[in-house]
Amino acid sequence: MLIPLDKTLKVATLVCPDVFMIDIVGAHSAFALSPNVETHLVWKTLEPFEALPNWPMTATTTLDKCPDVDVLIVGAVGPEVIGDTEVIDFIKEKGKKASAIIGICGGVLVLGAAGLLEGRRATTNFHIGESLKEVGAIPVLGGEVVVDGNLYTAGPAHGSMEAALIALGALRGEEVGKLAELNSEYDPHPPFKTGSPELAGPELTAIAMEITRQTIPFDLSLKLAREGYLKNRPGANV
Amino acid sequence: MLIPLDKTLKVATLVCPDVFMIDIVGAHSAFALSPNVETHLVWKTLEPFEALPNWPMTATTTLDKCPDVDVLIVGAVGPEVIGDTEVIDFIKEKGKKASAIIGICGGVLVLGAAGLLEGRRATTNFHIGESLKEVGAIPVLGGEVVVDGNLYTAGPAHGSMEAALIALGALRGEEVGKLAELNSEYDPHPPFKTGSPELAGPELTAIAMEITRQTIPFDLSLKLAREGYLKNRPGANV
Repeated sequence: MLIPLDKTLKVATLVCPDVFMIDIVGAHSAFALSPNVETHLVWKTLEPFEALPNWPMTATTTLDKCPDVDVLIVGAVGPEVIGDTEVIDFIKEKGKKASAIIGICGGVLVLGAAGLLEGRRATTNFHIGESLKEVGAIPVLGGEVVVDGNLYTAGPAHGSMEAALIALGALRGEEVGKLAELNSEYDPHPPFKTGSPELAGPELTAIAMEITRQTIPFDLSLKLAREGYLKNRPGANV
Repeated sequence: MLIPLDKTLKVATLVCPDVFMIDIVGAHSAFALSPNVETHLVWKTLEPFEALPNWPMTATTTLDKCPDVDVLIVGAVGPEVIGDTEVIDFIKEKGKKASAIIGICGGVLVLGAAGLLEGRRATTNFHIGESLKEVGAIPVLGGEVVVDGNLYTAGPAHGSMEAALIALGALRGEEVGKLAELNSEYDPHPPFKTGSPELAGPELTAIAMEITRQTIPFDLSLKLAREGYLKNRPGANV
């Protein structure tokens, strides 16, 4: 469903304390640097907060002032946001009206909590990939962007850029996507070739899993996402 | 020159109005998410400003309070910063003491203005690659991170992550670099395969050049970088 270039494309990205910058800057930038795009960084207030890691920032738009958007972007956030009814209601409402929903890394759990993954193919970071079943999704592993209808999900970091380029191409036409990829010179050369469990091997992967589980509260995040999903899945209130 | 993991690695990233977020978040995050790293986002004041595109943020550290650092990161900034003596003096001073200097995209011109590229191999975005000669560097094109001693330069966006991973591996040991690449799941899949002039072909490249030249003041940036270079190159004050 193409949105012509003379129509302003509206894009909202959820920001909040402890949001992972690396998950959202790529997607936000890919859209914001494309012609005739209006972007919003959305949070409860316009007070400054600290994004991760160590990045003081401010939203541009409050949840209640955010217009309906064509594109909704959600990156990894902490459990306090995944379990926040006001945020999840916002994501559910805007997500239902958006032409593209982009979930990056742990941000996919937010979409799950909002009931937006029901019966859909989705991915996230490898540490919690299989757990997507618990929020109604059909997990797809392997490190590539997963597209299911208007849902674009990806692993962390560069996944943000890749999901956005694909969505941009779908919404604005392939030539616009191609041009955005060129202008970002997105021709990557990973230096160590260890960017997936398969590439890194079991030993390094076990270390990565251990460190990440120690520092990121995945269990609590999943629990809260599951609770949200049970409340927000399609038909739950029927 | 390895810096052992029990020694805190200090990292400063130049931030300022109109800095390109996409050039600095990857490098900052790669270091900040690694063990025992102290990061600084450095600017003249701690007042809020708007980074590009449309991203309100705040520095953590003022130029005068920034300690000497092991790693200095500079992404693309506007001409008013490239021509700012206070900033260039800061970059020159910190750059001379750093174990790794990372320049991303137009940020490489800032390093050039500070005289830090003299006689060294360096790269930047394809639009201005050849112009690096004018700030004393030996231009290397082709889209990969260019390493010359302690100087790491790259094109935009993901170049930030790649240069930082290579520098992290050099400073902390290859295993630390490998683990950082795995934890970021840095196994990219560019969707359109148009991420370089060679991949995109002459027609799309001509469009990209035209759009970028209309929106980014490269000519003024280069002029100011050249003026800085002539003043700051090694031996200029002898």
